[in-house]
Amino acid sequence: MKEFELIKHFFTKQTVKRKDVVFGIGDDCAVLAPIENQNLVVTTDTLVAGVHFPFETSPRAIGHKAVAVNLSDIAAMGAKPSWLSLAITLPDIDEAWLLEFSQGVFELCEFYNVELIGGDTTQGPLSITITAQGFTPKDTYLSRSGAKSGDWLYVTGDLGDAALALQQITGKVELQPQYIDTIRNKLDYPRPRVLAGQTIREYASSAIDLSDGLIADLGHLCQASNVGANVVLDALPLSNIMRDSLLAEDAIALALSGGDDYELLFTVSEDNKVGMETAMSHAATSVTCIGQINASQTISTTLNNKPISIKTVGFEHFSE
Amino acid sequence: MKEFELIKHFFTKQTVKRKDVVFGIGDDCAVLAPIENQNLVVTTDTLVAGVHFPFETSPRAIGHKAVAVNLSDIAAMGAKPSWLSLAITLPDIDEAWLLEFSQGVFELCEFYNVELIGGDTTQGPLSITITAQGFTPKDTYLSRSGAKSGDWLYVTGDLGDAALALQQITGKVELQPQYIDTIRNKLDYPRPRVLAGQTIREYASSAIDLSDGLIADLGHLCQASNVGANVVLDALPLSNIMRDSLLAEDAIALALSGGDDYELLFTVSEDNKVGMETAMSHAATSVTCIGQINASQTISTTLNNKPISIKTVGFEHFSE
Repeated sequence: MKEFELIKHFFTKQTVKRKDVVFGIGDDCAVLAPIENQNLVVTTDTLVAGVHFPFETSPRAIGHKAVAVNLSDIAAMGAKPSWLSLAITLPDIDEAWLLEFSQGVFELCEFYNVELIGGDTTQGPLSITITAQGFTPKDTYLSRSGAKSGDWLYVTGDLGDAALALQQITGKVELQPQYIDTIRNKLDYPRPRVLAGQTIREYASSAIDLSDGLIADLGHLCQASNVGANVVLDALPLSNIMRDSLLAEDAIALALSGGDDYELLFTVSEDNKVGMETAMSHAATSVTCIGQINASQTISTTLNNKPISIKTVGFEHFSE
Repeated sequence: MKEFELIKHFFTKQTVKRKDVVFGIGDDCAVLAPIENQNLVVTTDTLVAGVHFPFETSPRAIGHKAVAVNLSDIAAMGAKPSWLSLAITLPDIDEAWLLEFSQGVFELCEFYNVELIGGDTTQGPLSITITAQGFTPKDTYLSRSGAKSGDWLYVTGDLGDAALALQQITGKVELQPQYIDTIRNKLDYPRPRVLAGQTIREYASSAIDLSDGLIADLGHLCQASNVGANVVLDALPLSNIMRDSLLAEDAIALALSGGDDYELLFTVSEDNKVGMETAMSHAATSVTCIGQINASQTISTTLNNKPISIKTVGFEHFSE
């Protein structure tokens, strides 16, 4: 019976009540009334303690991140998130931990009007699996497979800050004290690009979210689209903290290989470039053109207009 | 990259291709086209190794059971299952294990025309979380909360066999050798009552699937419906193996308290009794009337038409 009390106590306290949820938590299934003439998008991501976050991560950050990584996948489809299912496995019932964790979950849910519709609480090693759902107007979703030779390659925000935080935590990099909180927040509280995803939906030919690192995720996009790409290393968007803390070469290496950025990487045809940039400036999201798609089926990089091997800029040093 | 290869290798081999799946595995999200004018139902269940199944359980049985427990929740809503998302956490990449596991998953998917639409593969202690979805015609789902005083209480199939298997595995009960395989299959390969659920949808006032044991799940149903119930112990459906292997009192105790039956427990008004029984006989599913709903808000039991305390029949002995 404890499981049921738990779910009731912490996870029915949400303030989001959507009209398309006929009923949520408390029966064998949630019952939903999907909006007509829309596509439903669905994603599932698991975070395992000690693998996807350090054991000492705060429960609020774990809750936030578990939701954020899933909403980031929804964003990459250009979709609007609607519902979450939460499966949490806990070594023991720790009420203080659960309260903080649920706050982390609900903060993002409230911001994006996403309702928790159900889940499961089980005993075992700490791990969280979330299934997130959302909607796009019929046949107007983004995918990884639409990039064409000649399209411009864009990213939102800055690259590599989450990886810089991890370097700081593991003692590989020393940061100035005033930077530490800001950079740790980039790792612990990523902001999924939900509104940006919906804005680029009209303009982008393909999109993916950055979870594995720029080069790895660009590889997935190029493979799905059957194209190649050149990345202009001088153009990579780096935060002021990154520029202040690392040599240019090391900063570029982190921007290329560091995971957990949860920015959007997307492609736009020449014709849609201006329209997209205007729309994004209204959405108050910074975007940077970092290269171009080509027909080569490989990924190349240039610095100062000259080809440079990814290995030269230390990619292998930082990647696992 | 191993994760992607894994998913591709084992989980894109399915033969089910549904028309409402625009695209499934391979992008940031699956894209789906829900049927118009239907309610969507969603459930999530986690199985943790050493908690929900013994570590030595065969991978095929684990795959089967992970799907079955979720489809059983869909069945309890009277819904038709459509899509699965699978999150699997594995200590290491064992191809033979994954092959067998995926066979267990796909057997039930193929039988019920359910498509695996995505998921996540992570490293960590063995655990499986499945999110299953399905449909009912708009506003015609079953729930736990519709039981009324005077309704008859029914179950599908036999009760307690899965618990008997667990007693045999843990050495608490000795079974005749010719029974062992049959009874172990009841624990390892439960058959979710998917077709029965859709059949009773027209007749039942409430329903729940039996995962925690008859008394516990009847408690959930009564609480949600704000009613009580009397269970006629002489009427509980017991398999021949159960009758042959245990004293009547012990068999009844297992039938009341044993988990993992994945039968449907449901209520039917006097007016719908005959219609439901006729429909179920056409669906070739055995159903048994085991009692009646009352206004008491408690659960009572009778044997030989006399009230008997649940404790007397050993409920506490077998329950945890």
